[in-house]
Amino acid sequence: MSRAWRTSTEAFERDASLVAKWAAQHMQEAATAPIWSACSPGDLLKSLPEACPSDPVDVETVLAELKSHIVPGLVRWDAPGWFAWFPSNAHPHALLGDLLASCLGQQGMLWLSSPACTEVEMRALSWLRQALGLPDRFDFDGVGGGVIQDTASSAVLSCLVAARDRATQGRARRDGVDSAAEPLTVYASGEAHSSVLKAVHIAGIGARQFRPVPVGPGQGMSAEAFKEQLEADMASGARPIFCCATVGSTGCGAIDEVEEIAEVCAAHDIWLHVDAAWAGTAAVSDAFRPSIIAGADRADSWCFNPHKWMGANFDCSCLWLADRRPLIDAMSVTPEYLRNDPTESGSVIDYRDWHVQLGRRFRALKIWLLLRCTGVKALGAMVEHHVELSKLLERRIASIANIELAAPRSLALVCLRHVDGDEATQRVLDAINQDGALAATHCRIDGAKAIRIAIGTLAVEQEHVDALARVIELSA
Amino acid sequence: MSRAWRTSTEAFERDASLVAKWAAQHMQEAATAPIWSACSPGDLLKSLPEACPSDPVDVETVLAELKSHIVPGLVRWDAPGWFAWFPSNAHPHALLGDLLASCLGQQGMLWLSSPACTEVEMRALSWLRQALGLPDRFDFDGVGGGVIQDTASSAVLSCLVAARDRATQGRARRDGVDSAAEPLTVYASGEAHSSVLKAVHIAGIGARQFRPVPVGPGQGMSAEAFKEQLEADMASGARPIFCCATVGSTGCGAIDEVEEIAEVCAAHDIWLHVDAAWAGTAAVSDAFRPSIIAGADRADSWCFNPHKWMGANFDCSCLWLADRRPLIDAMSVTPEYLRNDPTESGSVIDYRDWHVQLGRRFRALKIWLLLRCTGVKALGAMVEHHVELSKLLERRIASIANIELAAPRSLALVCLRHVDGDEATQRVLDAINQDGALAATHCRIDGAKAIRIAIGTLAVEQEHVDALARVIELSA
Repeated sequence: MSRAWRTSTEAFERDASLVAKWAAQHMQEAATAPIWSACSPGDLLKSLPEACPSDPVDVETVLAELKSHIVPGLVRWDAPGWFAWFPSNAHPHALLGDLLASCLGQQGMLWLSSPACTEVEMRALSWLRQALGLPDRFDFDGVGGGVIQDTASSAVLSCLVAARDRATQGRARRDGVDSAAEPLTVYASGEAHSSVLKAVHIAGIGARQFRPVPVGPGQGMSAEAFKEQLEADMASGARPIFCCATVGSTGCGAIDEVEEIAEVCAAHDIWLHVDAAWAGTAAVSDAFRPSIIAGADRADSWCFNPHKWMGANFDCSCLWLADRRPLIDAMSVTPEYLRNDPTESGSVIDYRDWHVQLGRRFRALKIWLLLRCTGVKALGAMVEHHVELSKLLERRIASIANIELAAPRSLALVCLRHVDGDEATQRVLDAINQDGALAATHCRIDGAKAIRIAIGTLAVEQEHVDALARVIELSA
Repeated sequence: MSRAWRTSTEAFERDASLVAKWAAQHMQEAATAPIWSACSPGDLLKSLPEACPSDPVDVETVLAELKSHIVPGLVRWDAPGWFAWFPSNAHPHALLGDLLASCLGQQGMLWLSSPACTEVEMRALSWLRQALGLPDRFDFDGVGGGVIQDTASSAVLSCLVAARDRATQGRARRDGVDSAAEPLTVYASGEAHSSVLKAVHIAGIGARQFRPVPVGPGQGMSAEAFKEQLEADMASGARPIFCCATVGSTGCGAIDEVEEIAEVCAAHDIWLHVDAAWAGTAAVSDAFRPSIIAGADRADSWCFNPHKWMGANFDCSCLWLADRRPLIDAMSVTPEYLRNDPTESGSVIDYRDWHVQLGRRFRALKIWLLLRCTGVKALGAMVEHHVELSKLLERRIASIANIELAAPRSLALVCLRHVDGDEATQRVLDAINQDGALAATHCRIDGAKAIRIAIGTLAVEQEHVDALARVIELSA
């Protein structure tokens, strides 16, 4: 029966082809459209009707509106000259997997509510684990396992709460955090992602109990510095519970001494979480695997974001655990309306107990299509290509007067600065971002401003790195 | 240049049309495919290759694999006879909006990183606020505002942390929760969603400080019962900080006395959060609006999930705040690499400070297409149609011997049971779920098992409710 709120499957098919055509055209413009939006704050808001529209229009009309009213406010994260923050790649194969996930409309909170969403995710995580060379203790055979979360921020929060509850034998969960009597300390490199501190806030542990460990010359956390901090804390009565080791820091791609840190953690029963959000993808290449996965065989949890470098469009963060039980203990609450036979039997994985959210999307499908249709080999070649390009940039920079590396190149991330200091560095950064076809952002290294060049879009080629080097040279 | 990891936009367009065709065919089968998967735990895992595939195949091949290996493990949440849990509708217009979001690849953590993702979301939330008749204090003009989160679980966690930090003047954030010296109590109806208790666990407040308030005969929380509990707690030295009022409980759709609860909260400076995850959509209809939005003008935060009844495919949860500042205070951490001029100027909204995650997807686009192409009027008609169908079911049940309502019908949710008790009720539930074309789940009301019939898929018509009533009658 025809109803105003329905569209036919024929209409869906027709509209989907319109949208795909529009999107294909849009994607093709990535190389020529200006990267940064020219909009000022409020411009878009002003251009969009204030009143909620009442009468429906067709998809063609909306696509035209999108072009005129919304596209001017976009930032071209997909441009080949995008070197800002980190890549947030949306590979066409992943896009299609994600479209399928939307169309299938699965709600994977329980095994029963979608066996496919659950078991395909389990298998996809095992495939990715193999592709990265991670240890098989992260598989489901024993007490380990993996889960797809939305972001590395959610993943570190989940693990921190699990660690908190494990260390307090459930007291924190039952009675609440007792920070005055039992301060629980949390460790990460001073260069670790802001999500670690955010998780400390949210979990009720308190910012005062967060220990950003001073980094060494390579900007990574050394086991020695970690241990020193740890011993001082224990001497003053603190209870260390969690350490986040970073493999590829956001600022300059620094890699902590994970293997040695793991030893210290093991000696003091501290949960070791590894955050390889960006750099993790590099482990698909044999060339880079060893430095990425070092220490993973002793980590309690290990996380990377396929939605960054790998191209499994946002959101998609993979988290593996050596022992899934503390996470499930921390995250599970079972109301009557979710009780069911497979769950009670204990023979299934119910992923709602693996993160903050109850409901969950069939995210494994975008991993599936990316691995099946693009393939691990091609992804490895992509990583190697990006690292080659950053080596090229490194060489180009060496020949530019007044510009120097601000930190050692890490994989495909190059940080540079002007020898005259922050103002001069900012001038170079402004020149890059004013170009239209190039984008970069900044960080601070040892107190000084640095320009971050993160190479990693699907489309980048030598010509774009050359263009970047030219702008740097001209503005230096 | 051709590279193994790239696909052309032509290939994307062609593959997208294959996927859309496949999906359209799949969606068409919703009315005839068996709803529950026939798979046993592990069946799918066994059927999928253990080793990560190395050589790429084309999209046609994967679609064929999907059909043979993954479809058998699906649950048809889109079937017209789906009455289980709550609807998780994926409207074709929303699907296309979501596809566009994937293709545009925006990362909306900062205004600067995507003005469009930020300002279109602000406008879409204002449109939805108007459509639901929520007060304009939730708009951005003053100190209010709205945000799209993934789920109502994340939304309640964010608000609880904001309330915790507001009530302790930031001590909980800075020093950690001090549950022994200052127990912070949290309130919700005994019928509230499990996510409230989960948030209490995660935020370090402690399950012992969670007060599930006993519900009255209509299964809603009365202001009187809430106040009684509150006063007892205050007398024993607890510090009440947060109350979650439920508009449409998961079990039987009960609605708490929000207006009166709001008064109690105001008198004691308690954060009032309203969880209308499922029922909120009903406010698009003039007929149901008043009961849904009652008390919203005094709530600190108000949340509903367009990904349930409304059809904005998962995930999509809208959260409005009367005062956005405590949320931003609670969620913000600004590392150097995220500093930028628009943020420092204070003239923009940076949505990364509105939730746990840093990265964020352009979710407003699915709201946009749904509101523009389907329209509010049609969505209101849909809600009214579903409520009419549940009234019909109510009448049909009244004529079936041995079956009675287990709670008053709420909107489009009907709970029923067998007069002979749990075993007989379970027999009826089993009969429904064995039918193949029908699905329902259970809850407990006043200790007794009840069958939940949640009417709300895009396709449901009278014939499906008739079929359900027949099965109930035959098995009663």
